[in-house]
Amino acid sequence: MSSLSSTLALAFDLISRPSITPKDEGCQQLMIERLKTLGFSIEDMPFEDVKNFWATHGTQGPVFCFAGHTDVVPVGSPDKWKHDPFQPYIDDNGMLYGRGAADMKGSLAAMIVATERFINKYPNHKGTISFLITSDEEGIATHGTRAVVETLAKRNDTIDWCIVGEPSSVNKLGDMVKNGRRGSLNGKLTIKGKQGHVAYPQNAKNPIFLASPAITELANTLWDHGNDFFPPTSFQISNIQSGTGANNVIPGELHADFNFRFSTKSTVEDLKQRVANILNKHQLDWHIDWSLSGLPFLTEPGQLLAAIGESIQAVTGITTEPSTSGGTSDGRFIATLNCQVVELGPINETIHQVDEHVNAEDLNLLTEIYYQTLERLLAE
Amino acid sequence: MSSLSSTLALAFDLISRPSITPKDEGCQQLMIERLKTLGFSIEDMPFEDVKNFWATHGTQGPVFCFAGHTDVVPVGSPDKWKHDPFQPYIDDNGMLYGRGAADMKGSLAAMIVATERFINKYPNHKGTISFLITSDEEGIATHGTRAVVETLAKRNDTIDWCIVGEPSSVNKLGDMVKNGRRGSLNGKLTIKGKQGHVAYPQNAKNPIFLASPAITELANTLWDHGNDFFPPTSFQISNIQSGTGANNVIPGELHADFNFRFSTKSTVEDLKQRVANILNKHQLDWHIDWSLSGLPFLTEPGQLLAAIGESIQAVTGITTEPSTSGGTSDGRFIATLNCQVVELGPINETIHQVDEHVNAEDLNLLTEIYYQTLERLLAE
Repeated sequence: MSSLSSTLALAFDLISRPSITPKDEGCQQLMIERLKTLGFSIEDMPFEDVKNFWATHGTQGPVFCFAGHTDVVPVGSPDKWKHDPFQPYIDDNGMLYGRGAADMKGSLAAMIVATERFINKYPNHKGTISFLITSDEEGIATHGTRAVVETLAKRNDTIDWCIVGEPSSVNKLGDMVKNGRRGSLNGKLTIKGKQGHVAYPQNAKNPIFLASPAITELANTLWDHGNDFFPPTSFQISNIQSGTGANNVIPGELHADFNFRFSTKSTVEDLKQRVANILNKHQLDWHIDWSLSGLPFLTEPGQLLAAIGESIQAVTGITTEPSTSGGTSDGRFIATLNCQVVELGPINETIHQVDEHVNAEDLNLLTEIYYQTLERLLAE
Repeated sequence: MSSLSSTLALAFDLISRPSITPKDEGCQQLMIERLKTLGFSIEDMPFEDVKNFWATHGTQGPVFCFAGHTDVVPVGSPDKWKHDPFQPYIDDNGMLYGRGAADMKGSLAAMIVATERFINKYPNHKGTISFLITSDEEGIATHGTRAVVETLAKRNDTIDWCIVGEPSSVNKLGDMVKNGRRGSLNGKLTIKGKQGHVAYPQNAKNPIFLASPAITELANTLWDHGNDFFPPTSFQISNIQSGTGANNVIPGELHADFNFRFSTKSTVEDLKQRVANILNKHQLDWHIDWSLSGLPFLTEPGQLLAAIGESIQAVTGITTEPSTSGGTSDGRFIATLNCQVVELGPINETIHQVDEHVNAEDLNLLTEIYYQTLERLLAE
């Protein structure tokens, strides 16, 4: 253990705490103590059973923010792990095993250590460095980053640049950063027909038959072309059900769950209207319960992406690829503050799996990337 | 009770026996005793737990047959009945209540009494009168009429004309007889796609989308035009299901149950081939488990329909409508003997329901219709 870097030592401390969402298990207190020592102002922002904190060093703009979460997903069956998931362990290949090693306690450790080095070197840095840390990113994500951001917005606290420590890398550290995410819009569709006996189809209306041409048109619609940063908006049906189970009854209703992953080229209202138009064109008796799980956000090339890209290049030799692929993240809430948000973290190959692990040396390199990014943006 | 007609008295006796399918509860013995008195030869033909009998009066052709079943469907919740379903009761409006009153113990009583009258008047009638009675028409229908007919066929026993006592009338006694039934062909369709995450549609194939154009084509296909006796063959999907339940997963398979009600213009092999052609045209990875529940049969205008039509006209003043509509019946098995088969019985409005009932006087008129039909076909 004596040979562990500061980043790995802190990562070990964090991983040792079984902070299964929404538990924090003292992880935030560890981080807070380190930040207090640096002179950060700390503000606890608990909501319901979720621990969050907001910390700032400096009083001027621009405001840089490290964002992340101390909670981890459940371990599943602990017996299936090579090592106890809450006993961090580095194997002979230099791989650090443990729940949260990649998502995202390794990143949290790198953020803290990078900040320590930066403030020690630049005690009078420009602007403000802040931390926005939650313990419910892996859960329902209502009382965490979303609630903190709403509080900041109400009192006109701003963020200019934000790095979220999500594991964005694919094959090599830094090969990909996420400069946005698609929006996600869900709909529960009901199409009404008229129930009847299969022997008397003239007295019934089969909702499966009524729906099929509309489903084909929805499947074939080009919702938008995407843009330089987003692929075209996609529409998928995840579940469809119709029928009583009896094979001599024409069903009365069809139910389908669908989802849009949408780019910044489409709006929620526009997508809803276009779905309605297609269903109406096919003269269907329909109803949709809509739910929006996230608006799309995009950080276009600018100071933050430039600083990150240059730091990755300097540390790893890799030219990073900004991407908006994949699912949703807390970045969507932070982006509502109209700031630049980029996700940058280690390789995500084993996240949420048994034997989650990350290359230990990558966490040291990530610390250096974070450090250089701070330097490029805020060095005095 | 002293004023009950012979037909109603026998109907009461039969309804009093709770012969829920496949039980007979002595109903057949009641009928057999009456037929023995008339000089019928009786042959018990039990198969497994199902009681059946075959009875004949005469040794020459042509062979006329009364076919029917002594079993009834369950009563559901007896509390919901106005009267005990197995305590027959005629109300002030002359309606006979009881399970089986319409389907089809009333018809059985009418058959027996009509036969008694006929043989008493024409002891040396032409041809043969037979009865084919089962106790599993309302059940799985494997060990009843189907098995008896197979036995008759093996030993080259023939039937020329058959009246099945199914309740065929709609609004008035005799307004409709069934001179055939469509065939029924079931299929369980599986369409394979490729499961994936909705955020990565490029790595998946949504079977709901793949299937929709094919379903539309199947729904819109004109399978045949029917003929003078059958409506066009119809195709319906009774159940469709696809999806894991999760709303972020593109499902891997779609399942659909479908049914053809088909006329004598289409064959089973032709329908199977045409479905396959449509699925192949849409380049689907599909599988179907087929099951045939019944081939179509048709009794074209001839001696039996003429005798029945004239008898209905004489007794009720109604011109009957031969129809092939509705579900399947045991007629489909009897028709395999290459005989003329017609279903003729009381109004079917309340069959299989709580408070099943039939106009008591209709059973007396039905007796007269059966009697006149025998007279027109077999009077010496």
